[in-house]
Amino acid sequence: MLIALMPGDGIGPEVVAEARQVLEAVAGAGLRFEEAPVGAAGYRAEGHPLPPATLDLARRADAILFGAVGDPACDGLERALRPEQAILGLRKHLELFANLRPAKLYPELAAASALRPDIAAAIDLVIVRETNGDVYFGEKGLRTTPAGRRQGYDVMSYDEDEVTRIARVGFETARARRGRLCSVDKANVLETSQLWRDVVSALAADYPDVALSHMYVDNAAMQLVRDPGQFDVIVTGNLFGDILSDQASMCAGSIGMLPSATLDRAGKGLYEPIHGSAPDIAGQDKANPLATILSAAMMLRYSLGDPASADRIERAVAAALAAGHRTADLGGATGTRAMGEAVRAAL
Amino acid sequence: MLIALMPGDGIGPEVVAEARQVLEAVAGAGLRFEEAPVGAAGYRAEGHPLPPATLDLARRADAILFGAVGDPACDGLERALRPEQAILGLRKHLELFANLRPAKLYPELAAASALRPDIAAAIDLVIVRETNGDVYFGEKGLRTTPAGRRQGYDVMSYDEDEVTRIARVGFETARARRGRLCSVDKANVLETSQLWRDVVSALAADYPDVALSHMYVDNAAMQLVRDPGQFDVIVTGNLFGDILSDQASMCAGSIGMLPSATLDRAGKGLYEPIHGSAPDIAGQDKANPLATILSAAMMLRYSLGDPASADRIERAVAAALAAGHRTADLGGATGTRAMGEAVRAAL
Ligand SMILES: CC(C)[C@H](C(=O)O)[C@@H](O)C(=O)O
Ligand SMILES: CC(C)[C@H](C(=O)O)[C@@H](O)C(=O)O
Repeated sequence: MLIALMPGDGIGPEVVAEARQVLEAVAGAGLRFEEAPVGAAGYRAEGHPLPPATLDLARRADAILFGAVGDPACDGLERALRPEQAILGLRKHLELFANLRPAKLYPELAAASALRPDIAAAIDLVIVRETNGDVYFGEKGLRTTPAGRRQGYDVMSYDEDEVTRIARVGFETARARRGRLCSVDKANVLETSQLWRDVVSALAADYPDVALSHMYVDNAAMQLVRDPGQFDVIVTGNLFGDILSDQASMCAGSIGMLPSATLDRAGKGLYEPIHGSAPDIAGQDKANPLATILSAAMMLRYSLGDPASADRIERAVAAALAAGHRTADLGGATGTRAMGEAVRAAL
Repeated sequence: MLIALMPGDGIGPEVVAEARQVLEAVAGAGLRFEEAPVGAAGYRAEGHPLPPATLDLARRADAILFGAVGDPACDGLERALRPEQAILGLRKHLELFANLRPAKLYPELAAASALRPDIAAAIDLVIVRETNGDVYFGEKGLRTTPAGRRQGYDVMSYDEDEVTRIARVGFETARARRGRLCSVDKANVLETSQLWRDVVSALAADYPDVALSHMYVDNAAMQLVRDPGQFDVIVTGNLFGDILSDQASMCAGSIGMLPSATLDRAGKGLYEPIHGSAPDIAGQDKANPLATILSAAMMLRYSLGDPASADRIERAVAAALAAGHRTADLGGATGTRAMGEAVRAAL
């Protein structure tokens, strides 16, 4: 199996290095690694945040372990050259359309959540976010109104096939968990959402074992604070998913803990921590590598067909926390490398 | 001064009745009231959620006190006839473009917030949401893709004048408070947001006393949970404002407490609680009237030129809470009428 390593910027290289060693420890023999620059690192090396050779590696690989992209030094660049285009480009070029973000509070970290402990403890949900369509990839630009004013515009859209394929991921994810799927949209205002709701509703007949509900996005943002324990699986579009998944992460505690997977139809996936490149602490052995290590566990489960090793990693992370290891974001002083070491020791 | 009363559906009539009595108590002599149906009530009475006579009253009035709209019985209606079209129609027809939503936790209600008490106590912010543009009012519909699939689409857009007028409300609101304005967009993906950001940034020169910052909407959703105390005034578009303001409300505690104002350029405004019509408790004397009473206070301040009476109402609400009155949403047993009575007694 070929794993593409794309460490990216800021703390990316540090956290990817730890996760790679964990992968080697649990499944070393079967894995080959190849590395390529992305983000600001890609721009510096090859003049583009997603250089052709990096994209080529992504296509050849069975799975991608992605660190983080973003660098304030690139703020002045035109949008097409900025670091975050790397992740948008990989999602689109490889048809990675299903972003899965589990949010769950480790009992050891209850104090890290901004929510009241009783409310935070109940969080155990997965957000399934579509990442190939919506207002992200529609026609967009700057035009002049009849009155001669500059106007920015972006077309939001989904067609029935796009909704169907992500909704099926949502139903199947729910079926493998507690059997509840909440589809989030803004159907009281948006035609895109009305189609979304109609298509999702029609699919429910194929999943009689899943209880489907619908919620408006403004209410969902409220309910994720009020009572996040009510959710099992949430399925939603690219834009609403971007907002709600970051919000849910923060409800679950430190953003340094949460992994993600973005999958195509065939099981190939890109795995990345949900946190950013944190340039302020880069190179200081301070970053929390657990989100990336847990992303590697998701890789084993979803792309490498090795759920047993995924379980092993997840248990080792819980054990490292139970043993008292805490990086700075969790209020402790354990370094990035020492945390990686603690997980490997607990495998 | 002519006040239009639009009680609407569900608990709307009950809460508007209490707020009206508070207005009469503080400013009775100068006010005339006229009532008209909206929402499901408008549809039942006149076949439309915003009947022509209701719209006409809105145009004639100096300010509108709005209850809530929404009725499950209308779910099957086509979108144009559903209750929520009343509020969208009033915003658009009257050019009510600036929705102000203060979110602040009453110390007496600290236990009602889902956030940790130390984090919740620091919340004191205003969200300034644009309500005349964005993906709400752009071209939208259902079309067929070249591949023959049904596709829903909605065009998001803002022109420079639309951004300028709402940004100025944001800057001025910040100037009258703690002098900090955070503009929220998704400029790393949306052209609409890039123009938004450029226009807001250019205006900063006119407000040297206001510290302007920019934040992506996903990060803002996270920060509103992690550390809402960092915000003073947030200015944002219609869609992001819809999501973030509901989220912020919930962070601040019960949604039964929070008022809102939606203003035009001239000072006319629509005042409404941010909660919905809550059909499950309608007609049972259980609804919390405080959000509507506080909306009436905002009316006195922004449309009726009587800030002293606004202050009086706000102090009376605090006094009623301090005296121990709590409606069901706040964990108590005080009825709607008794709560209104308690506020009036404390004026
Ligand atoms: C960097 C940005 C373009 C990206 C997105 O909006 O999708 C990020 O926020 C994410 O969620 O992966
Ligand atoms: C009812 C709905 C159309 C409305 C909106 O989205 O603006 C509501 O959520 C609000 O915030 O006032």
